[in-house]
Amino acid sequence: MKLWGGRFAKETDALVEKFNSSIGFDKRLYKQDIRGSQAHVKMIAAQGIIDLQDAQVIDEGLEDILAEIEAGTFVFDIKAEDIHMNIEKRLIEKVGPVGGKLHTGRSRNDQVALDTHMYMKEEIKDVASLVLDLQKELSELAEMHVETLMPGYTHLQRAQPISFGHHLMAYFYKLQRDGERLQDCFKRTDLMPLGAGALAGTSFPIDREMVAKELGFAALYENSIDAVSDRDYIVEFLAAASTLMMHLSRLSEEIILWSSAEFGFVELDDAYCTGSSIMPQKKNQDVAELVRGKTGGVFGDLMAMLTTLKGLPLAYNKDMQEDKERLFNVIDTIKISLKLYSGMIATMNVKADHMAAALENDFSNATDMADYLVKKGIPFRECHAIVGKTVLYCIQNDKRLVDLSLAEYKDISSEFAEDILEVIKVRNCMKARKSRGGAAPEAVLFSIEKGRGMMKETEVFWSSK
Amino acid sequence: MKLWGGRFAKETDALVEKFNSSIGFDKRLYKQDIRGSQAHVKMIAAQGIIDLQDAQVIDEGLEDILAEIEAGTFVFDIKAEDIHMNIEKRLIEKVGPVGGKLHTGRSRNDQVALDTHMYMKEEIKDVASLVLDLQKELSELAEMHVETLMPGYTHLQRAQPISFGHHLMAYFYKLQRDGERLQDCFKRTDLMPLGAGALAGTSFPIDREMVAKELGFAALYENSIDAVSDRDYIVEFLAAASTLMMHLSRLSEEIILWSSAEFGFVELDDAYCTGSSIMPQKKNQDVAELVRGKTGGVFGDLMAMLTTLKGLPLAYNKDMQEDKERLFNVIDTIKISLKLYSGMIATMNVKADHMAAALENDFSNATDMADYLVKKGIPFRECHAIVGKTVLYCIQNDKRLVDLSLAEYKDISSEFAEDILEVIKVRNCMKARKSRGGAAPEAVLFSIEKGRGMMKETEVFWSSK
Amino acid sequence: MKLWGGRFAKETDALVEKFNSSIGFDKRLYKQDIRGSQAHVKMIAAQGIIDLQDAQVIDEGLEDILAEIEAGTFVFDIKAEDIHMNIEKRLIEKVGPVGGKLHTGRSRNDQVALDTHMYMKEEIKDVASLVLDLQKELSELAEMHVETLMPGYTHLQRAQPISFGHHLMAYFYKLQRDGERLQDCFKRTDLMPLGAGALAGTSFPIDREMVAKELGFAALYENSIDAVSDRDYIVEFLAAASTLMMHLSRLSEEIILWSSAEFGFVELDDAYCTGSSIMPQKKNQDVAELVRGKTGGVFGDLMAMLTTLKGLPLAYNKDMQEDKERLFNVIDTIKISLKLYSGMIATMNVKADHMAAALENDFSNATDMADYLVKKGIPFRECHAIVGKTVLYCIQNDKRLVDLSLAEYKDISSEFAEDILEVIKVRNCMKARKSRGGAAPEAVLFSIEKGRGMMKETEVFWSSK
Amino acid sequence: MKLWGGRFAKETDALVEKFNSSIGFDKRLYKQDIRGSQAHVKMIAAQGIIDLQDAQVIDEGLEDILAEIEAGTFVFDIKAEDIHMNIEKRLIEKVGPVGGKLHTGRSRNDQVALDTHMYMKEEIKDVASLVLDLQKELSELAEMHVETLMPGYTHLQRAQPISFGHHLMAYFYKLQRDGERLQDCFKRTDLMPLGAGALAGTSFPIDREMVAKELGFAALYENSIDAVSDRDYIVEFLAAASTLMMHLSRLSEEIILWSSAEFGFVELDDAYCTGSSIMPQKKNQDVAELVRGKTGGVFGDLMAMLTTLKGLPLAYNKDMQEDKERLFNVIDTIKISLKLYSGMIATMNVKADHMAAALENDFSNATDMADYLVKKGIPFRECHAIVGKTVLYCIQNDKRLVDLSLAEYKDISSEFAEDILEVIKVRNCMKARKSRGGAAPEAVLFSIEKGRGMMKETEVFWSSK
Repeated sequence: MKLWGGRFAKETDALVEKFNSSIGFDKRLYKQDIRGSQAHVKMIAAQGIIDLQDAQVIDEGLEDILAEIEAGTFVFDIKAEDIHMNIEKRLIEKVGPVGGKLHTGRSRNDQVALDTHMYMKEEIKDVASLVLDLQKELSELAEMHVETLMPGYTHLQRAQPISFGHHLMAYFYKLQRDGERLQDCFKRTDLMPLGAGALAGTSFPIDREMVAKELGFAALYENSIDAVSDRDYIVEFLAAASTLMMHLSRLSEEIILWSSAEFGFVELDDAYCTGSSIMPQKKNQDVAELVRGKTGGVFGDLMAMLTTLKGLPLAYNKDMQEDKERLFNVIDTIKISLKLYSGMIATMNVKADHMAAALENDFSNATDMADYLVKKGIPFRECHAIVGKTVLYCIQNDKRLVDLSLAEYKDISSEFAEDILEVIKVRNCMKARKSRGGAAPEAVLFSIEKGRGMMKETEVFWSSK
Repeated sequence: MKLWGGRFAKETDALVEKFNSSIGFDKRLYKQDIRGSQAHVKMIAAQGIIDLQDAQVIDEGLEDILAEIEAGTFVFDIKAEDIHMNIEKRLIEKVGPVGGKLHTGRSRNDQVALDTHMYMKEEIKDVASLVLDLQKELSELAEMHVETLMPGYTHLQRAQPISFGHHLMAYFYKLQRDGERLQDCFKRTDLMPLGAGALAGTSFPIDREMVAKELGFAALYENSIDAVSDRDYIVEFLAAASTLMMHLSRLSEEIILWSSAEFGFVELDDAYCTGSSIMPQKKNQDVAELVRGKTGGVFGDLMAMLTTLKGLPLAYNKDMQEDKERLFNVIDTIKISLKLYSGMIATMNVKADHMAAALENDFSNATDMADYLVKKGIPFRECHAIVGKTVLYCIQNDKRLVDLSLAEYKDISSEFAEDILEVIKVRNCMKARKSRGGAAPEAVLFSIEKGRGMMKETEVFWSSK
Repeated sequence: MKLWGGRFAKETDALVEKFNSSIGFDKRLYKQDIRGSQAHVKMIAAQGIIDLQDAQVIDEGLEDILAEIEAGTFVFDIKAEDIHMNIEKRLIEKVGPVGGKLHTGRSRNDQVALDTHMYMKEEIKDVASLVLDLQKELSELAEMHVETLMPGYTHLQRAQPISFGHHLMAYFYKLQRDGERLQDCFKRTDLMPLGAGALAGTSFPIDREMVAKELGFAALYENSIDAVSDRDYIVEFLAAASTLMMHLSRLSEEIILWSSAEFGFVELDDAYCTGSSIMPQKKNQDVAELVRGKTGGVFGDLMAMLTTLKGLPLAYNKDMQEDKERLFNVIDTIKISLKLYSGMIATMNVKADHMAAALENDFSNATDMADYLVKKGIPFRECHAIVGKTVLYCIQNDKRLVDLSLAEYKDISSEFAEDILEVIKVRNCMKARKSRGGAAPEAVLFSIEKGRGMMKETEVFWSSK
Repeated sequence: MKLWGGRFAKETDALVEKFNSSIGFDKRLYKQDIRGSQAHVKMIAAQGIIDLQDAQVIDEGLEDILAEIEAGTFVFDIKAEDIHMNIEKRLIEKVGPVGGKLHTGRSRNDQVALDTHMYMKEEIKDVASLVLDLQKELSELAEMHVETLMPGYTHLQRAQPISFGHHLMAYFYKLQRDGERLQDCFKRTDLMPLGAGALAGTSFPIDREMVAKELGFAALYENSIDAVSDRDYIVEFLAAASTLMMHLSRLSEEIILWSSAEFGFVELDDAYCTGSSIMPQKKNQDVAELVRGKTGGVFGDLMAMLTTLKGLPLAYNKDMQEDKERLFNVIDTIKISLKLYSGMIATMNVKADHMAAALENDFSNATDMADYLVKKGIPFRECHAIVGKTVLYCIQNDKRLVDLSLAEYKDISSEFAEDILEVIKVRNCMKARKSRGGAAPEAVLFSIEKGRGMMKETEVFWSSK
């Protein structure tokens, strides 16, 4: 018989039971469920709602159940629907009818909300820590490569010379914002819902502040209907995760490009690649491809959650049970993706000579030729046109800008002097971009320094959570 | 050592192995993989590519493996990555190096494409059959309720009187189109990819037509790169499934509304409901809510698949491995949803008196009052205005249209005669809508008849697949 | 000739021109573009990069152009592609070649990023202010209805008695979090990108801090590649907007339900409804329906943005031009939705008698009957079963809990005393839920007070922006 | 006063009016609206529902209005909400109260459904024709390049030698399925909804078959509630369009890669590229990038539509008005994308020497070396391992397979004979893949022939629509 079955004249259909049951995935919340129940029972005893002795029996019973689950001896029962009912049923088996007092002054609606909040607080913290790890790898590799010349691209066309370190730091800062989003999301997850009951609060003299303190929550939901109907903290997390994956998908695309024979900028360690069942020569960038591929899945899970919540009347509806599987999937995906990325970046072989060679054969110094003329007082738009024509001339004559003689330069514009030949050397072009945030080594080093300060602040934030 | 490991100097990272491995979900394809391999080996033997004797050894080995898997004694190995490698590895264990001849003239890329096509053909057929089952339940219930008055709604406002049977048939026809979409999708799934190799075809003298015939395929992929890079049949199925779920979500919304105390139009059987952990009186429409909730998930999985494929260069990329888990999830979801719906509809208690009562207290006969005047020759727009004012007058005086006397009607317009009092009786309003597809009982019965003809055609289509 | 045309031997195809052009929608950024250019020109003059006199000519030219645009006399040209080129072209027309100096030390890539950041800062602030307005309406209406009884629902089944004020405050708090998300998103939008150039920074001795200060930015992008490739602040805004719309869609669903004849809890003002072209009696909740409908569109625009960014290599790609139209659409949608909601809530007619009547005929006091027994020392699970059976008995005998006599109660359990008849009166049930955040009037008033404190803090935050 | 205003005591709020109004976008349907009205009026006259003379007056009035709209002299009025009301209002202005008879026996709900069906039938046909155009360009270019060597890729790693023609035909066949999906979608769009009225049909003796025949529809909706609540034909079209854009996004990605300096496989005509505002040398593949970028938008519009429909009760809800803007956007996007692609492909400069050179420096002939051994009787798995080790040896010694001497080959395996040196020449590898659908020139020519047959069938299908 179901724990809620009093009013029913008939048994649930077996397929319905399977369809409704969430124990297959929500058992992941066992620890939070037990710790939450222990805090609840401590409070209702402190408030005189149940006897202290009963509370102690329940608390010990729950502790035993925790041990059973962690030892793998607990038998989960699909008929008991979910983790809450599984644990409560086992509790009553173990300690007798007194176990039935645990659910005093609460409902599954606020209980599942509590468990999910507790679980997500831990997971957000874990994810943030993995983001920091990857930021560290990126900034360390960047520091080693502030002088490593590489073409900067727009539209996948070589545009201007940068350093590989400069390029990596772009991802560092994207991850920095991802980390900040996780902090903001954590603040809105750090709200204690228990005490909302089914939706309306309770007539028992409970002490919600005590439970919040016991479980380390910073604040309470101030409206009980909101507490049981809110899933926006999950949406916010999924959106932050989607953005993070979007960033990793961009880096993945680049790693795949860079690993191609055509680019040849990096070679991943064998440990991060796989081979082909038919082509013996193949070495594939599977990790990068899978991260890029799974990005679509994370977006889909965000969309699923939003769509599921759309147009639902308050307070709780069974539709909301659909929040968990996808949340768990996203958490697993971003954690393993971040871990693999840290390892992959740390072991990546950077082929600096290939990167530098790619710049030799191109026109990525054209902006510098134009800026040279600007500095002589010619309006930028005119310089742009002059250089554009020079490039066209070079293409038609199979030359590069460095192949032109000073005489040819003077033919193009009388403003050119001998130093033009120095100015358009690609290394000089890169070094000249000293503006804050720019490609010059000292600018990149400054941005690495700044970034490290930000990582420190992030660590301070989490150390207190 | 990996089957593809020849070129590698280093082992795969353990976490990478876990990340890459698809055996956790693609083992579902074991039967298709084995049947596909058997057809392949039969063909390469027939073509003289391998010995007939070797082929027989391999075929028997595969048959044994099938038995092992179905008996539950097969040990799946995460290190062997996927179902294909798991089976091939076991084959070589069982029959020795000759097992290594199975993979002659094919690649995992065309093999996984073949397995998925075979699997989906079966599943699409199954889903189509479940759609038919639900259509049957709906049309049978509709036939019983062609005289059961019910308010038809627009904007969730009572609009015009219809019958419950008429309303149900709207869903019948939506499902009819869903079934047709499944047929169309089946046609594009019924293409045989094997022989595409990794991407370029093969230099072995294979006979793709023979494999297609052996496995019951209607046609072949005519371009090998297309064959291994195509996933549009999966997208098409997910889109058809999304539309089907969208339809079920609308019916779910209505069942939830109808089951509310406020509507009270139907009561679901206890077997399709659950109770509350705290509120003993509750009887919740969980199945309908879950179907509505899972609709978001199916949409998300469609979006995930599309997004994953976007911008992928040809031919195969590892991103495409992400197709399976979500496909399997969608198939499971729609199959259980359809099954539960058939049972839920069949056992639903229709409260015809509540439905009829809902019409008594409203203005859903106003259109008929306007049409009455139109039939007297007054332009529709003027009639609309006259009736609009009459309704406002009624609301302000707490009356309904049937409460007005003939004298009052004549005051409104001299065109009214005694028959107006008959015309605006809600049952007469419903019965008057005899236009094809309309609410009148004979029109609904005609549409049920039409629908049954369509179901017959559907059955004929599938009987030959 | 294009401003960038120097290198090209051939004109752009006319259809390509139309496809590429963004002037049709990005002209909305004209003010930001001009103010940003003025700050830039002031800085490059201050840094000695161009003459002060040239700078003044340019500044005045830009001011004139602003006036032309606001007067509607400016002629936008599709051939000039975008707002930046339209303005620069006009500037050169007006002030001559010196206008060509404006683009010194910057690129369209950082320019468009600057414009969008400036634009979004204003819009986020506006949206936040509209959220506050709606919170005010909700809390004022809530305060008037802390004693207005209404059924609280779960699964759209009447669950426990609450007040209408209590229900409204659930939305207040959802909006509170929406407002906080806007603040957090603002922080990450308040970063100054100019100076990033095309992607690598610039060799001109620019002063990015000066531009930031001039334009009121709190911080700078610290990496130039990040500055031009970042769109995550747009994603974050779209996610916050999606969550906000999700909340409004839930309220919309409820308003539509409440306005139905079946519920009859509220009546919207005629000014917020429309009629039917055929059914003269209809009064439709179009605003609520459209807001619910447009929610899907906002989700779709979020998905579009994420999907567009997925897998893009750094730095700028033309794909990113797709950010604006959808962003503008979302901003317009949420602003008008919020404005209409404030008006609709303020003028809504609450039918308190219908709400109260809905509670009379139900079992929403069953939890209180169970809790009564719990307070006598019976474990909750046993009480739940006792009450469940009582409800079943009542349903089968067409009774409600208040219809049972004390004798009948005593038959059910000897623990019942006379006060049970008081305890289960629905008003008393509601009043008894005094737990923090609960349904009792004093608890709701406390939560309104708390909420007002939060609104104050929000106002303080924005007053300094 | 609104045409539906009779029942209302108060004017609509001005902002509500703006929010509700669809005339801004649905005016696109003017022709369908008028042609549909003319067919309707002809039928109701033929059925004796209105006078023939009135019908003629109305018909002529509508024809005049059509001329006004096409001449640009018609003044659209936001207060008249939508295209239907705008035209009806103008009709009454022109022909007097008799114009009010037009709306007899129909409603805006079935009218807008009719207009949209008519509009979409034309658009689907147009899109299908543009798909055919692109297929023609692809197959013609493919035919010219069946001997043009190019590396085939998996995981963006060079895998096996193919021809450029072979590669292009992969897209041809993807488009072929897209075209078939459009045909199937057309069939489900070709259903006539008029006569459904608001939702329940009508009591007027209308003849729906006559209207269907008049307007060229193949079939009728058989249930009036379905007719006004159905939007699945729009979802189906958006899904087909998403798949088509997904295919174009893949081709776009490849064109962008191929145009990069690193690949250098093609050069787009100047007419399909644009330049940079700062970097004079840049030539950007904007069209390909925009098509790839807009793909995200089309996916988002599909998601928007599905999400908007999810959970809507029957029959019509205002949410459904959200179908049009996004549908129109998608139609415009795919039409311009297809047109530009046809032009871009037709003018693309193929750099066959670069493609061939890419194969010289790689191991894409490794499969052929393995297959050589297989043909000597060694199981494929062993051959795979042998070749894998050979590749590793080559990489470590900076050699390619063609650099190895026969002696070295014999050292690797005694099975190698002199012909191995011929077998592994990349051109021979490509030519050897004669399996149906494979890379060999004759196989590609066969597939082009097959494809042309399919195009013929497609043309036949559409010629009768």
